[in-house]
Amino acid sequence: MFEKLKAEVCKANKLLKENNLVRWTSGNVSCRVPDTEYVIIKPSGVHFEELSSENMVVVDLNGKVMEGELKPSVDTESHLYVYKEREDVNSVVHTHSPFATSFAIRGQDLPSYTTTAANVFNHRVPCSDFATIGAEDIGREIVDHIGECPAILMKSHGVFTVGSTIEKALKAAVVLEETAEYAYYATLQEPELKPLSSEIIASCNQFYAASYGQN
Amino acid sequence: MFEKLKAEVCKANKLLKENNLVRWTSGNVSCRVPDTEYVIIKPSGVHFEELSSENMVVVDLNGKVMEGELKPSVDTESHLYVYKEREDVNSVVHTHSPFATSFAIRGQDLPSYTTTAANVFNHRVPCSDFATIGAEDIGREIVDHIGECPAILMKSHGVFTVGSTIEKALKAAVVLEETAEYAYYATLQEPELKPLSSEIIASCNQFYAASYGQN
Amino acid sequence: MFEKLKAEVCKANKLLKENNLVRWTSGNVSCRVPDTEYVIIKPSGVHFEELSSENMVVVDLNGKVMEGELKPSVDTESHLYVYKEREDVNSVVHTHSPFATSFAIRGQDLPSYTTTAANVFNHRVPCSDFATIGAEDIGREIVDHIGECPAILMKSHGVFTVGSTIEKALKAAVVLEETAEYAYYATLQEPELKPLSSEIIASCNQFYAASYGQN
Amino acid sequence: MFEKLKAEVCKANKLLKENNLVRWTSGNVSCRVPDTEYVIIKPSGVHFEELSSENMVVVDLNGKVMEGELKPSVDTESHLYVYKEREDVNSVVHTHSPFATSFAIRGQDLPSYTTTAANVFNHRVPCSDFATIGAEDIGREIVDHIGECPAILMKSHGVFTVGSTIEKALKAAVVLEETAEYAYYATLQEPELKPLSSEIIASCNQFYAASYGQN
Repeated sequence: MFEKLKAEVCKANKLLKENNLVRWTSGNVSCRVPDTEYVIIKPSGVHFEELSSENMVVVDLNGKVMEGELKPSVDTESHLYVYKEREDVNSVVHTHSPFATSFAIRGQDLPSYTTTAANVFNHRVPCSDFATIGAEDIGREIVDHIGECPAILMKSHGVFTVGSTIEKALKAAVVLEETAEYAYYATLQEPELKPLSSEIIASCNQFYAASYGQN
Repeated sequence: MFEKLKAEVCKANKLLKENNLVRWTSGNVSCRVPDTEYVIIKPSGVHFEELSSENMVVVDLNGKVMEGELKPSVDTESHLYVYKEREDVNSVVHTHSPFATSFAIRGQDLPSYTTTAANVFNHRVPCSDFATIGAEDIGREIVDHIGECPAILMKSHGVFTVGSTIEKALKAAVVLEETAEYAYYATLQEPELKPLSSEIIASCNQFYAASYGQN
Repeated sequence: MFEKLKAEVCKANKLLKENNLVRWTSGNVSCRVPDTEYVIIKPSGVHFEELSSENMVVVDLNGKVMEGELKPSVDTESHLYVYKEREDVNSVVHTHSPFATSFAIRGQDLPSYTTTAANVFNHRVPCSDFATIGAEDIGREIVDHIGECPAILMKSHGVFTVGSTIEKALKAAVVLEETAEYAYYATLQEPELKPLSSEIIASCNQFYAASYGQN
Repeated sequence: MFEKLKAEVCKANKLLKENNLVRWTSGNVSCRVPDTEYVIIKPSGVHFEELSSENMVVVDLNGKVMEGELKPSVDTESHLYVYKEREDVNSVVHTHSPFATSFAIRGQDLPSYTTTAANVFNHRVPCSDFATIGAEDIGREIVDHIGECPAILMKSHGVFTVGSTIEKALKAAVVLEETAEYAYYATLQEPELKPLSSEIIASCNQFYAASYGQN
């Protein structure tokens, strides 16, 4: 089932590695199958080089494996919680990208210091409370704290991003790491650095939604 | 039109990614078509891997699309402002390279601490005031603050470089990131570090213009 | 002898370079040959690009070369000491990965700040006392200080990891560098940062052993 | 002339880029032609991707171009000064590697904090006084300050390494950057960190010369 979408989810997972957002077997991308109760997700603990369309796992919204020989990601229940609570979300991405995770370790929200951060994340990327891995606790933290932002720092763990498409969730993961890296460098030199003003952030947001990219 | 130059602009855009100066779809290179009112520039929000000679956009100096199916970069008006105001500039490069952007976030000029920085940038790379994306405001900041330097830090945004050729504008973008990275490391260890003296900078500049590279 | 296992040890050594854990010719992976007194190890001072199944060295547990034209790694006696003292260990990995080595230079244990660190290393990665290279002193430091942890920081030198399989020892080396990098970033910003609590670490460990990966 | 050695010098120059020691066109490797008054060196300002055996430049010890269409590196006179003063040196390598250059900017010697640094550099890598580019001033700084060490930090500029073979000079350049990176991380966390003791350094040196690598 869903061969084309499984290929896309597989490719998106591989892009996590190519964009240096994950190492070894950590991190995962999932996608809701449009107009169904199904979700496609990476298998647990498999190397990115070994991923193929064939070993992507199809689960229903209760976590029952519908297709696939392998166990799905240990984060599956949390992905599913997000899909059940947020109808606008069709893709969830999880990474341990380095600079973003260093803010997550400290339990700090990541404020917007650049026009790019303001474009994509508005005022800040929120940081969650600590959540245990393996059930839907992480999903609940995401839904409770992410709001309108496409990204959230998961306390002492890593990052999750969401989007109406795989492309948008992946972009949020890439831009979050860039945002965290630049904020890290700048605030290490200047700890009292002020984020962008509300006026600038509002104008970035408005412009970006209206004008960036192709239609 | 201009197939050879479109291929060069396309290749230069891809070099931004290969030199780790940009991520996802941010950043762009443009080039003036010699002896015309035309400029070739990257389309907006397109992945670097998907760029080809065919999807480069040709605009006139008023921003009217002359050739190309796609919308040009959202920075197009600012590139054009530079071309209109600076006849010596035939290429403009825009990146969000990490260390340079961290100086831009802080609104700090980047002084020259190395012979390479002095060779290419003279005393310092200036930092602009904040400019809104989307119209020609960024172009005006560039023209008002860049002076004889081939690079400028764009406040809370990224960097722009200019040159009489694509090669020179690209080189300024690469050397700027190197310069910012080394200055970052050194000043984090030693915040009161002194830049090079005016005598050394003058001698670097003179030597470099006279002797470096092939004729 | 042991062609298949020599190919695996060769590939594992090359993965050190591909994962940016070593430079030039430093670092090595060895593996015990199951149900024998033999160990396969990288030759000394050979470039990773030049490694092949054919130039892997087979030694017995006394360090006598049984097969191979080249001298084995200068760390061989230390690897053998570990195999002799720890029957549960079938692979030893040695790297000079950057952030982990920076903790080893300072002689600091690396506490767990992330769920991934807790999953793989429990409370902390211990740091050894200084040991001289070339005999079995490093092996003795490993056995005396590593305990149940799959990794140890070798004072002023680098890191060693162990596992019941090559895959597990390699994973420990990759995750150790990630763990050290994130801890470095976070503690540089916030020197008094608290590691994860014992309760969280215990729950991570339990979950990870029971649920992560395929069976 | 010297086709085999020109191919080796060309390959060594490309390795500078592959090991992330240089960017754009900076940096160079040269080699003395055994039993002659000739030296082979990289042309000035040429991209590493465009280097070939054919465009390597052969000069005599007075700097006269004996073979090659292109101008030799602007550092040629300094390389030649080293070859004239140091009969034991058959290869000179110049890079602007990031962390090493950050120590050169600060005018600081780089002390040995790791066994690898002690193996290759003994107590420290010295830092020179400032020297002007283009004549033999840099060469004089090298000869005056490098002593028995295979590497020197060139004040406010970059690094030079020397060796009896290309392989050894290149290795010193790679290990110097590793050494500088690790020392940077460790001393940023702990500014008063003590380098290795003289006893440890002496024992590393002795062991390394006697035992590392193949004969």
